[in-house]
Amino acid sequence: MIRIFVTGGTFDKQYNELAGTLAFKETHLPEMLRLGRSRVDVAITTLMMIDSLDMRDADRARIVDECRRAEQSRIVITHGTDTMIDTARELATAAPGVGSKTIVLTGAMIPYAFGSSDGLFNLGSALSFVQVLTSGVYVAMNARCFTWDRVSKNRSTGVFEPL
Amino acid sequence: MIRIFVTGGTFDKQYNELAGTLAFKETHLPEMLRLGRSRVDVAITTLMMIDSLDMRDADRARIVDECRRAEQSRIVITHGTDTMIDTARELATAAPGVGSKTIVLTGAMIPYAFGSSDGLFNLGSALSFVQVLTSGVYVAMNARCFTWDRVSKNRSTGVFEPL
Amino acid sequence: MIRIFVTGGTFDKQYNELAGTLAFKETHLPEMLRLGRSRVDVAITTLMMIDSLDMRDADRARIVDECRRAEQSRIVITHGTDTMIDTARELATAAPGVGSKTIVLTGAMIPYAFGSSDGLFNLGSALSFVQVLTSGVYVAMNARCFTWDRVSKNRSTGVFEPL
Amino acid sequence: MIRIFVTGGTFDKQYNELAGTLAFKETHLPEMLRLGRSRVDVAITTLMMIDSLDMRDADRARIVDECRRAEQSRIVITHGTDTMIDTARELATAAPGVGSKTIVLTGAMIPYAFGSSDGLFNLGSALSFVQVLTSGVYVAMNARCFTWDRVSKNRSTGVFEPL
Repeated sequence: MIRIFVTGGTFDKQYNELAGTLAFKETHLPEMLRLGRSRVDVAITTLMMIDSLDMRDADRARIVDECRRAEQSRIVITHGTDTMIDTARELATAAPGVGSKTIVLTGAMIPYAFGSSDGLFNLGSALSFVQVLTSGVYVAMNARCFTWDRVSKNRSTGVFEPL
Repeated sequence: MIRIFVTGGTFDKQYNELAGTLAFKETHLPEMLRLGRSRVDVAITTLMMIDSLDMRDADRARIVDECRRAEQSRIVITHGTDTMIDTARELATAAPGVGSKTIVLTGAMIPYAFGSSDGLFNLGSALSFVQVLTSGVYVAMNARCFTWDRVSKNRSTGVFEPL
Repeated sequence: MIRIFVTGGTFDKQYNELAGTLAFKETHLPEMLRLGRSRVDVAITTLMMIDSLDMRDADRARIVDECRRAEQSRIVITHGTDTMIDTARELATAAPGVGSKTIVLTGAMIPYAFGSSDGLFNLGSALSFVQVLTSGVYVAMNARCFTWDRVSKNRSTGVFEPL
Repeated sequence: MIRIFVTGGTFDKQYNELAGTLAFKETHLPEMLRLGRSRVDVAITTLMMIDSLDMRDADRARIVDECRRAEQSRIVITHGTDTMIDTARELATAAPGVGSKTIVLTGAMIPYAFGSSDGLFNLGSALSFVQVLTSGVYVAMNARCFTWDRVSKNRSTGVFEPL
C-alpha cells in the first residue's frame, strides 16, 4: 500500500466563484485517482491545505513526523512547487530521518480543477516512480524524477531541472 | 531518449462531427506531453492509427520490427487495450527478440479528446516506469505495471489485473 | 415555465468505455443547466434517447403529441441535427397543430460529455430564444434562430444555413 | 452584425502558472465563438481587461461612449458580474444616451479557461437575446434576461434576481 499525504499546493487550488479568488477546499486526489482508474492500493491523508509559500517550519516538521510514523514504506506527497524542494531536503536530512522509505513529492503548475492541468500526468508519474525506486527522497515533475539534492525549480519557466 | 511508438487505440480516438462517429486522425501524444509539461527527451513515431481489435499479425510484426530497430533502449507504445497483451507477448517472445530493451505498453479507456480521460494519467505512468525498470516487456495501466505474462484485462470492468 | 423535451441526438451521446463505442445513457440536460447556472423554471421530460437518423414516423408523432398536450406554451426540444428540420416541419404542419406555442429545437455537433462541445452554447441560446419569440416552430443552432421552413443543414460543414 | 465589447471580468480570467495567481491576458471570446460554432456576424473589440471591481467612472464613460459611437445597433458587452448592473445603469441613463440600441451585458461566475464555466452558456444566451429584444439595456445571466433597472445580484448565491 502507498501512503499519500496531501499538503495543498496548486494541485488542489480551486476557484471561489463568490469571492472571485483562488482557494482551497477539499483535495481532488480521490477524484483524480478515479479519473485515472488507479488500482494501486492507497491511503490518503490530508495534512494541510496550503500554498507552499505559506508553509512554515512547523508544517514541515509535521510532514517529516507523519512520514516517519507512517506504516507504509512508500509515500507520495502532493505539494506546492515553490518550496517542494525545501520540504524534500527536510525529509532527507531530518534526524532521525525517514531513511528506509521511498518518498516522492509531486505537484502541479495548473490546478487540477482548471481543466488543462498537468496534475493528472504528474500524479500518474509519482505513483509509478514510488513503486519502483529504492529508498530515498525524490521530486517527480515533468515526467522526470530527481533525488532531493539534485534538482532546482527554474522560476522563470516553472520547470524542474537537474542541478 | 525515450522512443514512443503510437499505434492508435482509444487513446487517440476522436469524434467525427460530420459523420457522428468515432475516428482516428492525428495522434494527441504531442499535445498530451505539452499539457503534462513533460521534459523527458522523446521521439514520437506513429506506426499505425487503428483500433487494436483491427490489429493483424502483420501489424504486430511491424511493431516488433520497429522496436528491434529502434536506437533507443527505452520504448513506450500507446496501444488499444483490447489486444495490448497480445502485442506485449509478441514483443517478448519474438525471435530474435527485443530482449535488451525496456518496453512499456499503455493505453486508455476513454479517449484523450473526450475530456475525462485516463490517458494523461497512464502516459505519465508509462513514461515513468520505462525510465526505471530493467529490460523486459511491460503493460502499464491503472497506475500499475505488469510484466507481459502476468496480466490479463478484465473485460467486464476494463481493469488490468495480475494473473 | 419552459418545457424541455429530450430526444437524444449528439447532445447526449457518450462513450461506452467497455464496448469502445458511442452510446446513450441518461440525458446530460440537468447537469448542463447546473453548469450554466440556469435559473429559468424548467420541466424536463425524456421522450426518447436516439440518434435522429433512427427516428421514425411514430417517434415524430409522439413528439408532436407531447408538444400538443404540454401545459407549457414555451418548449425546447433537444434533437439530433441530421433530421431536426424534419421534426420541426412535422410540428409546424401537423393538424391539429401546435400553433399557439413557441417551440425551439436545438442540438449539438459534439457530444456534451466530450468536453469541447457546442451543446452548452446552443442550450443557452435555445432557452433564450424560446422566452422571447412569438408562437411558431424554430431551429436554434450556431447562435442563430430560423423558422422551420427557412433553414437547411449543410451536411459538408455541419452548419445550419438560411434557405 | 452584432458588436461585442470585451471588458474583462471572470469570463476572461486565467491562471498565471508562474505567479500562481489569477490574471488577464487575451480575451477568450473568439475561441468561445469557435467552440459554439457561432455563425452570427460579429465584430469584437476589447475595451479593457479588468476585474469589474476595479472599474472606474472613466472606464464606464468609455464603454458608454463606445456603445454610442458603434455603427451596430445590437451590442453584447462581456463584463465582471460584481458591477455589471452599475454599467448597465450608466448606459441606460447617460445623456445623450444609447437609447435606440439593444445592449445586452453578460458575464460568468467561473472563468471560461477553467473548464466548468457557465461562460459559454451565458454567451449563447446573450447573443440570442440581443438579436430579438427591442432597444434597451439588459443583463443576461442564468438564462434569464432583465432590463437594467429590474435586477440585482445576490452576492451570497451569485445569482441575478428580479427586483
